[in-house]
Amino acid sequence: MRPKQNPDHWCSKLYIIIFEHDTPAGKRFDEFLIALILLSVVTVVIGSVKSLRLTYGSLFFTLEWAFTLIFTVEYLLRLLCHGRPLRYMVSFFGWIDILAILPTYLDLVIPGAHYLIAIRILRVLRVFRILKLIHYIGAADLLMKAMASSARKIAVFLLAVLALVVVLGSLMYVLEGEKNGFTSIPVGIYWAIVTMTTVGYGDISPATPAGRFLAAMVMLLGYGIIAVPTGIVTVEMGELRRKESSLTMCQRCGEKRHLSQARYCQTCGERITTD
Amino acid sequence: MRPKQNPDHWCSKLYIIIFEHDTPAGKRFDEFLIALILLSVVTVVIGSVKSLRLTYGSLFFTLEWAFTLIFTVEYLLRLLCHGRPLRYMVSFFGWIDILAILPTYLDLVIPGAHYLIAIRILRVLRVFRILKLIHYIGAADLLMKAMASSARKIAVFLLAVLALVVVLGSLMYVLEGEKNGFTSIPVGIYWAIVTMTTVGYGDISPATPAGRFLAAMVMLLGYGIIAVPTGIVTVEMGELRRKESSLTMCQRCGEKRHLSQARYCQTCGERITTD
Amino acid sequence: MRPKQNPDHWCSKLYIIIFEHDTPAGKRFDEFLIALILLSVVTVVIGSVKSLRLTYGSLFFTLEWAFTLIFTVEYLLRLLCHGRPLRYMVSFFGWIDILAILPTYLDLVIPGAHYLIAIRILRVLRVFRILKLIHYIGAADLLMKAMASSARKIAVFLLAVLALVVVLGSLMYVLEGEKNGFTSIPVGIYWAIVTMTTVGYGDISPATPAGRFLAAMVMLLGYGIIAVPTGIVTVEMGELRRKESSLTMCQRCGEKRHLSQARYCQTCGERITTD
Amino acid sequence: MRPKQNPDHWCSKLYIIIFEHDTPAGKRFDEFLIALILLSVVTVVIGSVKSLRLTYGSLFFTLEWAFTLIFTVEYLLRLLCHGRPLRYMVSFFGWIDILAILPTYLDLVIPGAHYLIAIRILRVLRVFRILKLIHYIGAADLLMKAMASSARKIAVFLLAVLALVVVLGSLMYVLEGEKNGFTSIPVGIYWAIVTMTTVGYGDISPATPAGRFLAAMVMLLGYGIIAVPTGIVTVEMGELRRKESSLTMCQRCGEKRHLSQARYCQTCGERITTD
Repeated sequence: MRPKQNPDHWCSKLYIIIFEHDTPAGKRFDEFLIALILLSVVTVVIGSVKSLRLTYGSLFFTLEWAFTLIFTVEYLLRLLCHGRPLRYMVSFFGWIDILAILPTYLDLVIPGAHYLIAIRILRVLRVFRILKLIHYIGAADLLMKAMASSARKIAVFLLAVLALVVVLGSLMYVLEGEKNGFTSIPVGIYWAIVTMTTVGYGDISPATPAGRFLAAMVMLLGYGIIAVPTGIVTVEMGELRRKESSLTMCQRCGEKRHLSQARYCQTCGERITTD
Repeated sequence: MRPKQNPDHWCSKLYIIIFEHDTPAGKRFDEFLIALILLSVVTVVIGSVKSLRLTYGSLFFTLEWAFTLIFTVEYLLRLLCHGRPLRYMVSFFGWIDILAILPTYLDLVIPGAHYLIAIRILRVLRVFRILKLIHYIGAADLLMKAMASSARKIAVFLLAVLALVVVLGSLMYVLEGEKNGFTSIPVGIYWAIVTMTTVGYGDISPATPAGRFLAAMVMLLGYGIIAVPTGIVTVEMGELRRKESSLTMCQRCGEKRHLSQARYCQTCGERITTD
Repeated sequence: MRPKQNPDHWCSKLYIIIFEHDTPAGKRFDEFLIALILLSVVTVVIGSVKSLRLTYGSLFFTLEWAFTLIFTVEYLLRLLCHGRPLRYMVSFFGWIDILAILPTYLDLVIPGAHYLIAIRILRVLRVFRILKLIHYIGAADLLMKAMASSARKIAVFLLAVLALVVVLGSLMYVLEGEKNGFTSIPVGIYWAIVTMTTVGYGDISPATPAGRFLAAMVMLLGYGIIAVPTGIVTVEMGELRRKESSLTMCQRCGEKRHLSQARYCQTCGERITTD
Repeated sequence: MRPKQNPDHWCSKLYIIIFEHDTPAGKRFDEFLIALILLSVVTVVIGSVKSLRLTYGSLFFTLEWAFTLIFTVEYLLRLLCHGRPLRYMVSFFGWIDILAILPTYLDLVIPGAHYLIAIRILRVLRVFRILKLIHYIGAADLLMKAMASSARKIAVFLLAVLALVVVLGSLMYVLEGEKNGFTSIPVGIYWAIVTMTTVGYGDISPATPAGRFLAAMVMLLGYGIIAVPTGIVTVEMGELRRKESSLTMCQRCGEKRHLSQARYCQTCGERITTD
């Protein structure tokens, strides 16, 4: 929300640059931010390669702190120029923004080798920043809508798959046993998911004839089942596409080829009413 | 079926709670039952992990018996308050309910290490209970209908795939032979299914040039074939969706935008007849 | 083709039983034949398992000869009672029928251990017999039509995939080299097909960073490409389905809800003409 | 572009043969060229097999030079008879044509074992020639259009997948660590792509319970996500197909069954206007 102040105040100007995307300055700021985010993600990713960390360790350390400080300043400015800073803090992107800078500071407050490894799990969340990119491309809209309107159906489907996977994992645990790698029912469930989704690592695979027969059945089942989410999303997308391109029909002559904002039928001149 | 008794009889009241879902008491009972089912499934799954079984073995044993006894009481109550208990017993969920409690008792009646392992295969069937969950979500309907109306086509498709898989499995047995892991035609068929469904464990994979060439052909074939079940389900779903949203057309003016229960055309006032 | 003889002749009666499917006798014959085909395929498949072959070798040998003799008699009867035997012989099922009995005889004519292994490749073709099954299920029609009308598009698609796969296989051969399993360009092409079709055995997989980067690109490409055959088949199926259920529209009142054999509009009585 | 000269000039005649496809001579030239391209690709592919290279090395060397010289002459002729040679050179196929002959010459100019290996990466680009084939099949059109009109949506989708894959790869690096093969975040990203696309080599696979749980979540996610590109392409194809077969509607009687070039309604004789 824009602060309720004199539009000439520096705060209002800053708000427009940081939060809005339709002025030249705001656009340039966004582009700069995206470049910075990508750079910082690349630094984290490359910094995890052992050979590079040993040689350029201090460079990566410096860069990470530099990026963290820049993003911290950006976060504080966002808080400062937002009309209601608390509403921003608890918003989706407010959370992502704070999660993207916290891990580096946590690393500082709590030293100790053993804890550091546990903290890293938060550090990698910094890459969520990249998700901001999605905002800037208009074509993402239809995708989002289609996903949202079929989310419930996909949830039901995933639930059914989960139930099936528990049954199949248990059966394989009994059929194959611990000597063939199925050391527990959770491992069997992991195997069933690996198989049903057609990933098929091969780290655990059936060795007994009975186990292989059941596995083959699971695969053929998965072959038919993989069609379901595809069908759901395709139908939803087709429906949205159709609604987009459906035109208003004249109620007297049946003429359909009007623009959606037409007020009179282009064929017979009848007033077009939208009920 | 509700018993034909005085609706104030405790049996009728129990029937409403246990079998029906639209009263507050019935709803609370269902929610409690689902929680119990999930808990018992989690107990079985976790109890299969060796390290946990060694430490908490007696706890898992007690819990399993507790859940079995609760479900046994539930089963007996269902029999008691159902108008025609035999019809319930031979129904789909009647079978699942009895299969979900039997394994624990069978474990008791027939001791002996060797037999126990064979009994376990029934024990895991208990997780079928979770399938009851499907009932409670409305969105499952469209999925079920689309699956049902395309079941025959998918069956034909699976039959054709099975025939293909037998031919390909035999060919690979001849081409690769026992030294490359294709020890028999059934193993070759298992390989063909693993490959056609794009699972691809890699526990058995061709090593000779001829075998690899045939395998590559099988994969490209599978690439084209995987489209078929997806196409079937998508078209069925689209059809069902269209039927749902198809509106009645006025026979005089061609106006289509009526609710399905409309009796007069909203444009020209003509009576709408449904033939 | 039915022989041009007296319909009471035994040949005509035999033709109806063997070739036609709509009389009780013809139907019973077909069902018996399918059972026999399935039995003989099962015999071949089970007979390839080493442990069973060592114990029941002579039984499998006897059964195979028995089935071959029965199918030979059936083939001769087909030739005998068909109006134009040569046309039957060169038809699709004529070829399958002869290929299904030849291997056993070839095994007899040309003895010698070394050749036997080569002959086996023909022997397994016997399982093609099972393909006859497809005939008997009506739902296969729509599948066949959709496949046929999109065959050309799928062919173009497969051609493009093949070209891509040759390029990618060559690139991986150069990037990874012989030490990582990519011993030649054909092996690289085999790897590319295994990867693009998302089978992913893992018998050959990239180990260098450059190779892994290219492999990741190939996978993401394959992710987008797998959509194409599915799209083709789905659209074709939807089109066929729509044609099936499209109804004739009255040219005067626009009424569409007629059966396809309707001759007068059910609403206004106008003659329906099909142009 | 055809040269602006006397049509009887040998240059114009050559242009028609080399660049155009609708004369008998032009068609024969194209067919010959395709055969030659396929032969040269096969030579390169087969020549990479070690055992064959050792025996027929000089033959492959000679053939490669022969093909290169033929294609060089073809390239020069194309330059010669094209009206504006520079425009041809910078066109898509101009680049492919020069890339398809350069590697062999580069191999000659710059000797030295170390450089040769780097040059080979260009050499394999010669197989791009095969891409010319696409031109000759009409059915490729619809495929190209559907791909083009959904390219932006697929790009957004791939971007979202890439962001997800970076997050998941980082998480797995932290969860599994270097001892289980996840030696760096790039390797983790490679694993995430291998898993999300359901390729699943199994060269790197999670071994800890937490890692396997996350991996299972990734697979189920990928199961739902794989539906998106399929949905996009299917809807686009269906849309294109519909536009192709959509007919002009008469504005007076609503009759729709006209050919697209119809000027009068076939039912009521009304003039059909296309606005």
